[in-house]
Amino acid sequence: MNNAIGVGLLGLGTVGSGVVKLLEENAPRIFQLIGRRVEIKRILERNPEKARLLGIPPEVLTNRFEDILEDDDIQVVIELLGGIEPARTWMLDALRRGKHVVTANKDVVADYGKELFEAAAAGNADFYFEASVGGGIPIIHALKENLSANKIEEVIGIVNGTTNYILTRMAEESVDFQSVLRSAQEAGYAESDPTADIEGHDAARKIAILASIAFNTRVTTKDVFVEGITKIAPEDINYARELGYVIKLLAIARDNNEDIEVRVHPAFLPQEHPLASVNGVFNAIFVRGNAVGETMFYGQGAGQMPTASAVFGDVMEIVRNLESGSTGRFACTCFLDRKICPIGQIHSKYYLRLIVKDKPGVLASIAGVLGNHQVSIASVIQKRTLAVEGEMRAEIVLITHEVLEQDIQDALTVLKGLSIISSVENVIRVEGGSKI
Amino acid sequence: MNNAIGVGLLGLGTVGSGVVKLLEENAPRIFQLIGRRVEIKRILERNPEKARLLGIPPEVLTNRFEDILEDDDIQVVIELLGGIEPARTWMLDALRRGKHVVTANKDVVADYGKELFEAAAAGNADFYFEASVGGGIPIIHALKENLSANKIEEVIGIVNGTTNYILTRMAEESVDFQSVLRSAQEAGYAESDPTADIEGHDAARKIAILASIAFNTRVTTKDVFVEGITKIAPEDINYARELGYVIKLLAIARDNNEDIEVRVHPAFLPQEHPLASVNGVFNAIFVRGNAVGETMFYGQGAGQMPTASAVFGDVMEIVRNLESGSTGRFACTCFLDRKICPIGQIHSKYYLRLIVKDKPGVLASIAGVLGNHQVSIASVIQKRTLAVEGEMRAEIVLITHEVLEQDIQDALTVLKGLSIISSVENVIRVEGGSKI
Repeated sequence: MNNAIGVGLLGLGTVGSGVVKLLEENAPRIFQLIGRRVEIKRILERNPEKARLLGIPPEVLTNRFEDILEDDDIQVVIELLGGIEPARTWMLDALRRGKHVVTANKDVVADYGKELFEAAAAGNADFYFEASVGGGIPIIHALKENLSANKIEEVIGIVNGTTNYILTRMAEESVDFQSVLRSAQEAGYAESDPTADIEGHDAARKIAILASIAFNTRVTTKDVFVEGITKIAPEDINYARELGYVIKLLAIARDNNEDIEVRVHPAFLPQEHPLASVNGVFNAIFVRGNAVGETMFYGQGAGQMPTASAVFGDVMEIVRNLESGSTGRFACTCFLDRKICPIGQIHSKYYLRLIVKDKPGVLASIAGVLGNHQVSIASVIQKRTLAVEGEMRAEIVLITHEVLEQDIQDALTVLKGLSIISSVENVIRVEGGSKI
Repeated sequence: MNNAIGVGLLGLGTVGSGVVKLLEENAPRIFQLIGRRVEIKRILERNPEKARLLGIPPEVLTNRFEDILEDDDIQVVIELLGGIEPARTWMLDALRRGKHVVTANKDVVADYGKELFEAAAAGNADFYFEASVGGGIPIIHALKENLSANKIEEVIGIVNGTTNYILTRMAEESVDFQSVLRSAQEAGYAESDPTADIEGHDAARKIAILASIAFNTRVTTKDVFVEGITKIAPEDINYARELGYVIKLLAIARDNNEDIEVRVHPAFLPQEHPLASVNGVFNAIFVRGNAVGETMFYGQGAGQMPTASAVFGDVMEIVRNLESGSTGRFACTCFLDRKICPIGQIHSKYYLRLIVKDKPGVLASIAGVLGNHQVSIASVIQKRTLAVEGEMRAEIVLITHEVLEQDIQDALTVLKGLSIISSVENVIRVEGGSKI
């Protein structure tokens, strides 16, 4: 009697191959834990070479999604194609037909979560996506289940390995962004088109997913304020160190009680913060709940086997649901309709680095403009003078107290119009200060 | 129609009061998530004052466990009494009667897990114990569910807040163990009888629980090798820092393929290890799986609300099981019978601090003895001379390469017999070196 759970795999790329390998290596343990064999029955993949290298018989491969959709022996579809289409349509079709779906596809989950959950409900099927955020780190289950007795106050993630690798190397080697990016590309840690990573879009999708779960309200990519790391200079990293901070690309979801903030941007983070020592390609997600307090989940945010671990964890969950007759045990949890705080309305501290004319009274003028906009200064560093176009300039670094973002932006507009200001080199939000 | 889930609470101490408060604060959210109200129907507590302060009506209190056991409106029993009896008997009775049980009681879970799971199976009830290890950190669910596709290679925990607080303060302030212990007792971070914490017994119970889950084999407290932190001196901490390490009380469960190692002892840990920056009363559990690689789970390992968060997370899990008809979804996972590696058979690096006569040839003699026992030396520090009983002595610090524990113990026996050795001041295992 063959009581195996049949799986259809969409895509035999890096992660897909990892799923095949993981099942091969850990099959006895998996069988003992869930009491059913798991069998990959069909694989949608155009390149037969990939299958041959893994020893997969050619008849398992197909080019037609229908071969998976219409096969009644396939109960679970693992979607690892990436991108919106055809992944979105195929997942919807599979769910409506009652096939359970596991995906690592952050793009689709971030923007089409609602319709996917509706399709799952219509088909009485399970929809799981642990691998879409944080690779092998079980952050989605933690938020949906283990921490669910908490009102979640904030989720702060380092959820993009490429940018964390670049910022870590910039800090360790005092080199500029472009050179680290180039060597990261050569080493395979950054894509040839790195836009989605370095401009923060990848992190934005992930925090949209986490915010939706944490705050029980639907958040999609367009709701997320995004700023990348391309403007971060070695000078900023050095000043950060001097002031007791590190610079990280943070994905932040915060409940400020009135509305919720969802944003991705580089930020100063105190060196003592648990996220500050998360380096290289590692990811970590910091969660503060009203009962549990501060927690953090750390691990490899990408890569073949860590992602396969999360995918297969979800498959095992689905099998447990099948075995215990509890399919649909976890469905959509977005039962609220929270408002998103516009970026101008957030409160934060700010780091400003300005190049100014090296004259008496300059600092007084800057402080005056800031004061007129309710921006008060917490600390100032002025120590470097430099020649720009034959004239001497001074570099001034300021950290503000907590202020309204709109006020600081208005003040900057005025500052940029002053003849004493050569340039506003950078403006970076400062996180994790008061509460840590 | 009252469709509330009835709860019986055993013990209204710190955590019990936390559970009551958490339910009060987060009740609307909890109801929306699980679709059922949760109502604490009876509380077993001898001190009515505790209930009065929380605004609990007197008729909810009882002195008799039977009032909870025999009440058919109570489906879930939360056990927060601590200690072995009567907690063990009452949990067994409740489970056999078909009442689901949630506990934070590491003592009972570590040593009576088998009979508790048998009772749960007999009563078709759920038995959950997330709060028994790591307070609010969802490590048990992570190991049982999300990471379950992995073969777990090692679990290394900082799972005792008291000892981590003491070691952190010793490192930050260069003071000795006894003075930090006294001030920790005054501040309420250490019990008046601190034995269970400082001698490692508390951590031993927790690692017995984690090892049982990680390796699918029953491990109880008596299987765990235990050594406390009372012999750690400021000198050891300073040498550790100089050599690039920190000293932590580690609870280690490792699969060395042949058998499993389960032990609690202070250890040198490289400063770059994710666990090295876990300070103060925080806990963290580092898990290495064959697919997921390195992960870490960090948070408050004790305290009223973090522990209540874990307890209530389990209650919600039970309600989800009731709602989806999947009670018994998670049962005992100890289906293997792995052997425990005797401490003499482990392989480790060692730090040795010796006080020796300050004479030529002493280091050669020590190296000779070690060499005779297959112990090779990785690094040596000798820089301090001190007067002992009117004679000049030298302090020698050695780090060995990885060797068999029995060999180092045999070598130490010989060294202690040499007239040139005044004393073996400390021997500390060095962890996390080669693989990190």
